[in-house]
Amino acid sequence: MILRRDIFQALADPTRRTILVLLASQTITAGAIAGHFEGARSTISKHIAILTECGLVEAKEQGREIYYALKMEKMAEVDLWMNELRQIWEQRFDRLEQYLDKIQNQQK
Amino acid sequence: MILRRDIFQALADPTRRTILVLLASQTITAGAIAGHFEGARSTISKHIAILTECGLVEAKEQGREIYYALKMEKMAEVDLWMNELRQIWEQRFDRLEQYLDKIQNQQK
Repeated sequence: MILRRDIFQALADPTRRTILVLLASQTITAGAIAGHFEGARSTISKHIAILTECGLVEAKEQGREIYYALKMEKMAEVDLWMNELRQIWEQRFDRLEQYLDKIQNQQK
Repeated sequence: MILRRDIFQALADPTRRTILVLLASQTITAGAIAGHFEGARSTISKHIAILTECGLVEAKEQGREIYYALKMEKMAEVDLWMNELRQIWEQRFDRLEQYLDKIQNQQK
């Protein structure tokens, strides 16, 4: 089962990551996005749909065109998870340090 | 095609992310990892293999047991990509600000 709304699943594909980098610099149409890639336009449309579904990209109607914009604030979910992991990792070494301090003090 | 050695592909699965959080706090055996999950041990073994292949986890032999350790430094690849994205995003607004400043100065 592919969790389409999972942001990590969305980031797992290198083409989708490239689309996000593209959209970081500018808000453009699906056609303009597809212009940066070789291969079928329908494949790129699917990637854009996945990015939109999980909230990393937003479709904005402007006249007769639809523009796609990066929703940078959604990337905060990745930061949150990374920070949680880092915190657990650092606490572990804090505990180790405290333990070593305690042993050292007992030996004094 | 699944890029097994792609760290983002490794992070795409919620069970693998939970394994990484587990290993952030301690270095444990595959059996101990599997003990935290319901379902087949072989499924967990496959997840551990993917995490090891992409370098996020390291197998360490200790006596007759194999312990799995998080390689936190490998997570830096995610930071790198996130920082690249953020930089492109911020430069865009810097450019916009410079443009608005220029217009404002011209109107003075």
